[in-house]
Amino acid sequence: MNQKTMKAVVYHGPNNISLDDVPVPQIKENDDIIVRVTTSTICGTDIHIQSGGLPVKPGLIIGHEFCGEVVEAGSGVTNVKVGDRCAISCVTSCGHCYYCRKGEYSQCTTGSWIFGYMIDGCQAEYVRVPHANLGVYKIPADLTDDDVLFVGDILSTGFFGAEKAEIKPGDTVAVFGAGPVGMCAMASSRLWGPACIIAVDTNDFRLETALKQGIADVAINPAKQNVREEILKLTEGRGADATIEAVGVTPTYNMAIECVRAAGVVSIIGVFEKPQELKMNELWIKNIKIHMGLVKTDQIPALIKLIQSKKIDMRFLQTHRAPLADIMKGYDIFGHKKDNCIKWIVTN
Amino acid sequence: MNQKTMKAVVYHGPNNISLDDVPVPQIKENDDIIVRVTTSTICGTDIHIQSGGLPVKPGLIIGHEFCGEVVEAGSGVTNVKVGDRCAISCVTSCGHCYYCRKGEYSQCTTGSWIFGYMIDGCQAEYVRVPHANLGVYKIPADLTDDDVLFVGDILSTGFFGAEKAEIKPGDTVAVFGAGPVGMCAMASSRLWGPACIIAVDTNDFRLETALKQGIADVAINPAKQNVREEILKLTEGRGADATIEAVGVTPTYNMAIECVRAAGVVSIIGVFEKPQELKMNELWIKNIKIHMGLVKTDQIPALIKLIQSKKIDMRFLQTHRAPLADIMKGYDIFGHKKDNCIKWIVTN
Amino acid sequence: MNQKTMKAVVYHGPNNISLDDVPVPQIKENDDIIVRVTTSTICGTDIHIQSGGLPVKPGLIIGHEFCGEVVEAGSGVTNVKVGDRCAISCVTSCGHCYYCRKGEYSQCTTGSWIFGYMIDGCQAEYVRVPHANLGVYKIPADLTDDDVLFVGDILSTGFFGAEKAEIKPGDTVAVFGAGPVGMCAMASSRLWGPACIIAVDTNDFRLETALKQGIADVAINPAKQNVREEILKLTEGRGADATIEAVGVTPTYNMAIECVRAAGVVSIIGVFEKPQELKMNELWIKNIKIHMGLVKTDQIPALIKLIQSKKIDMRFLQTHRAPLADIMKGYDIFGHKKDNCIKWIVTN
Amino acid sequence: MNQKTMKAVVYHGPNNISLDDVPVPQIKENDDIIVRVTTSTICGTDIHIQSGGLPVKPGLIIGHEFCGEVVEAGSGVTNVKVGDRCAISCVTSCGHCYYCRKGEYSQCTTGSWIFGYMIDGCQAEYVRVPHANLGVYKIPADLTDDDVLFVGDILSTGFFGAEKAEIKPGDTVAVFGAGPVGMCAMASSRLWGPACIIAVDTNDFRLETALKQGIADVAINPAKQNVREEILKLTEGRGADATIEAVGVTPTYNMAIECVRAAGVVSIIGVFEKPQELKMNELWIKNIKIHMGLVKTDQIPALIKLIQSKKIDMRFLQTHRAPLADIMKGYDIFGHKKDNCIKWIVTN
Repeated sequence: MNQKTMKAVVYHGPNNISLDDVPVPQIKENDDIIVRVTTSTICGTDIHIQSGGLPVKPGLIIGHEFCGEVVEAGSGVTNVKVGDRCAISCVTSCGHCYYCRKGEYSQCTTGSWIFGYMIDGCQAEYVRVPHANLGVYKIPADLTDDDVLFVGDILSTGFFGAEKAEIKPGDTVAVFGAGPVGMCAMASSRLWGPACIIAVDTNDFRLETALKQGIADVAINPAKQNVREEILKLTEGRGADATIEAVGVTPTYNMAIECVRAAGVVSIIGVFEKPQELKMNELWIKNIKIHMGLVKTDQIPALIKLIQSKKIDMRFLQTHRAPLADIMKGYDIFGHKKDNCIKWIVTN
Repeated sequence: MNQKTMKAVVYHGPNNISLDDVPVPQIKENDDIIVRVTTSTICGTDIHIQSGGLPVKPGLIIGHEFCGEVVEAGSGVTNVKVGDRCAISCVTSCGHCYYCRKGEYSQCTTGSWIFGYMIDGCQAEYVRVPHANLGVYKIPADLTDDDVLFVGDILSTGFFGAEKAEIKPGDTVAVFGAGPVGMCAMASSRLWGPACIIAVDTNDFRLETALKQGIADVAINPAKQNVREEILKLTEGRGADATIEAVGVTPTYNMAIECVRAAGVVSIIGVFEKPQELKMNELWIKNIKIHMGLVKTDQIPALIKLIQSKKIDMRFLQTHRAPLADIMKGYDIFGHKKDNCIKWIVTN
Repeated sequence: MNQKTMKAVVYHGPNNISLDDVPVPQIKENDDIIVRVTTSTICGTDIHIQSGGLPVKPGLIIGHEFCGEVVEAGSGVTNVKVGDRCAISCVTSCGHCYYCRKGEYSQCTTGSWIFGYMIDGCQAEYVRVPHANLGVYKIPADLTDDDVLFVGDILSTGFFGAEKAEIKPGDTVAVFGAGPVGMCAMASSRLWGPACIIAVDTNDFRLETALKQGIADVAINPAKQNVREEILKLTEGRGADATIEAVGVTPTYNMAIECVRAAGVVSIIGVFEKPQELKMNELWIKNIKIHMGLVKTDQIPALIKLIQSKKIDMRFLQTHRAPLADIMKGYDIFGHKKDNCIKWIVTN
Repeated sequence: MNQKTMKAVVYHGPNNISLDDVPVPQIKENDDIIVRVTTSTICGTDIHIQSGGLPVKPGLIIGHEFCGEVVEAGSGVTNVKVGDRCAISCVTSCGHCYYCRKGEYSQCTTGSWIFGYMIDGCQAEYVRVPHANLGVYKIPADLTDDDVLFVGDILSTGFFGAEKAEIKPGDTVAVFGAGPVGMCAMASSRLWGPACIIAVDTNDFRLETALKQGIADVAINPAKQNVREEILKLTEGRGADATIEAVGVTPTYNMAIECVRAAGVVSIIGVFEKPQELKMNELWIKNIKIHMGLVKTDQIPALIKLIQSKKIDMRFLQTHRAPLADIMKGYDIFGHKKDNCIKWIVTN
């Protein structure tokens, strides 16, 4: 039994990942399940990891956004059973600890293990999922893996960014970054009834996609326009009611803070590799709120319902797909944004 | 000057209103304005008043939903000026008192005067608007009276009902009553991202209108179906996350309470003439919240922005229109829901 | 093993309870624990049950407020271990279901079993506690059973009532009922910084106790004073910002609704046996919110910290105490409020 | 009339203020009042201004924390009348604009004029108060100027800092800076029921004062102890639930961010002269919220009620007092924290 092996993407150090043969994972705790991965993705965070920008231990299997079928379940699992097709959260949570009781599921004291970051991930044939009573959700019979593929990470992350932006009906929201996470933040922002969603990115193809898909109302390219001036024009000189930073670098961070109105909210969901400057000498009087953090994914059931009722449909992000065997090609194409690739889907 | 007269609908007692010649109103306080009414409506509350169901003093001019042009402004008015086309709140608020400082504008201690209920109303050629610095909003150049006509009352009321329903993305919301206010509540509910809006009414034409206009996802007719059972089917047996009562009678009140899930919210915006029963013996353990109240209209600027950006368009409610001279015919047709009349618009 | 018996209070039907010999409980699910009860109480709800006012099945062991020592733990229990002294929630919650994920722990779909109401309770030598990972909290070494005895029910209930009352600093709060739960609601209300807490009860001894203990600022006896008039005098004619109903009968229900100001909150924690009237004809315009519900107990860790830091001390409620063998005497004295009994404590 | 002069502290440039003879102010707008200053203070912000650290125009009268008597009122003032003794907000607000309607009074588009910063201030015999319908509150007959002196600025600022810290009952709150504003933040934090308030300052006299006055539970001196380690010890290794920065310099800013737990709140009320670093590389995953801003003072009525009911008493801060004629001595003693001066009170 223990001898069984599978294919998986293993991190060996900065700029050194490969598709290796590794042992199939096994149940360790009684609330674990083993999932056969049916569909997964390459995520922007994987590119951070690949390049060595995030602290991952060599030997780890990477990947954290996926759907799959339960093939084994621990004795304490009541939520799903063998044979269930499931969407799975990229962070795990026990439901009982100090943070879980506060609804801060991504800070779970015995979880918050991000697949492919702290424990073995999903760019593999099988994956062990701890605390399976909380982060695993059955896919309704009328939906496919593709329909719900992003609820486990980027759609929940975009939703989380929008939720923390405290958008009110009629607001103007500016989203900095029209990559997969930024576009999920735009689509999620729509759920709080803003009058105007502004997409900001240097990539015209992505801006056009956002407009065409109806998730943005206005697009601004910082390479061609003065973003702050354009946003002030759209907001009677005040700035956006809320801004969402979805990249993790200095220019988008600065714009997110400079383009928010007094008493507005800056919601940061980008993954940062470096410290930034906070102009407290200008901001102390401006009454803004800055939120930053890691997705909690507790809204997966709500997102699945919204997908079922056709209120959200992010399949347009799935520009490229190939089997696990071809995933290294995906790292090249998605990682370098070649061929207008937005998301690389891995089929098993 | 004082001799000038105008046409206005005057309440003389139960089932006794008439279009009379009355004096044109004048400025009394320095934050008053006088508005020439350009477009107004007959509202469900006017029918309550006409029949004697609400405590209105004989001699009062009725009507409270309108747009108009400022023709005179008190010395303390800074918000608008003579010549401005405006949408006007049906309740007035000072902005300074105990309640206004809490954002509870409809409880203003020197205002909350509902036009046509406590002070002279707008089914007239001119109307005096007190506390004009707060409840009067310029109509943007690209919008007509018809576009924004309902922001002063029914759209704000529907919005208020939806806001107090505390709808979360992915929720199921049931709205009891598909009249003008109920349909405004449905359209407003959409602003908080529900997965499903259920319209409940005995009038099939109105249910079909709600579905066709995309403000409801499901329609239930209590004359033909068991409402509670249908809602339980749609919600995995739990009941709606939020219910909105938009009529003010016992059957809709009861359904709103019986169809909400444990820990859900019942938001009541109907105008009631009678006490109701609250089954505390069943409800004490159910953790529900019941909110009731009079619209605050502080969201008119947000609603105007949503109309400008095509996120809300309630013009389909405007099924009938005629000049003020013909308004008594409107009371008959709208009051008795003849000819599929949803709203009767008064042009001047 | 299975033959072991213990003493326990068993409900046999209306006005028929007795201290019987029954089997010692055993682990059923892997997240169960068995607790040796060290201290428990008789609660007002037990009196409702004894008289047949609540639907309890004959044969059930009653009692739901207690502390104890873990004597056995299921294989899935990670939160506590054998030998731990614990305070235990009167409702159980899984932490994973639809309601638990919303923080509505008292509506848990596989729990919300109130001890001594739906499952065997704690007026016994031993009790089985399901879902022990969530409702069981270690008692800190510097605290006794008596210190924390009420966190499992009445103090959490009072806290819940105060929390749902949405008290703001400087507010005036009126609590209807100065029994054990009402006094816990007063002490908890203090945590949100009100300027004035008003205790309302017909029992002068209890009113004096509330004033003397510093949990109320003003006391009103409805048998001697017009409650509404007194409250209006204390609030510039407006009414209390929040009212808390802590009895469950018509007079306190009516006062709670009549004494709240416009746009205030009515928080109901009384257990009701009968329907009540809601004067919607007067209230529709008053913008109030009415909340009712069963305690969630998720704040037990916060309450324990507040007790440790001497911010809350409810031991003064413990007016009477005796061993389990004498509990029938307690039902008589506590049940009939003889001898100024506020709470009857059961020692084991 | 216009010839009348008075004494006032005038800013002439960095490190150049003097007590000059200047014209008595006059009504300009119809919602202005003229106040005879009866008691005022020197505030920490005045020291920032004196040294040239904040952008103030030469010629301006400084000072912004005061009580006084209305001696003249514009025609639009309905809130107070000549002869009223009043506590007055340091920021002015119209009650009608975009920001006021959102309750963001310190961002008022025709106000937010901070006395002694943008318009003439109160270190004078008389001061003009614009928008007097909103920021001016009658002092109850049973209270003195000294009782309520700080509600106009530092107590409202401390309250604002505590409010934005989103303190929950049972929380641990760390306040960085035990100066007058920090101590007001501690006293205000108590209003939300924390189990533990930690005062952090290098000044032992101030720490002892905070402990002795019961507004802090624990004191930490960074010159003698490792603040982060001490706070981790007090919070089971997590960090404080909320931190409040009340100074405006790098060490307190850094500690406020380093000592908050995951998913906690950092509330900044210090006035900063320089930009700071935000370690986004560490914080992006920590789910914290950072709020910063200028006091809104809308809670003055609540604070007055809390003072009346003895729930707050900040008179112990009034360590020094002298007439306006001696104010330059106050700038020396208060400005250099000589003689254990906490607040310098100016009597007229």
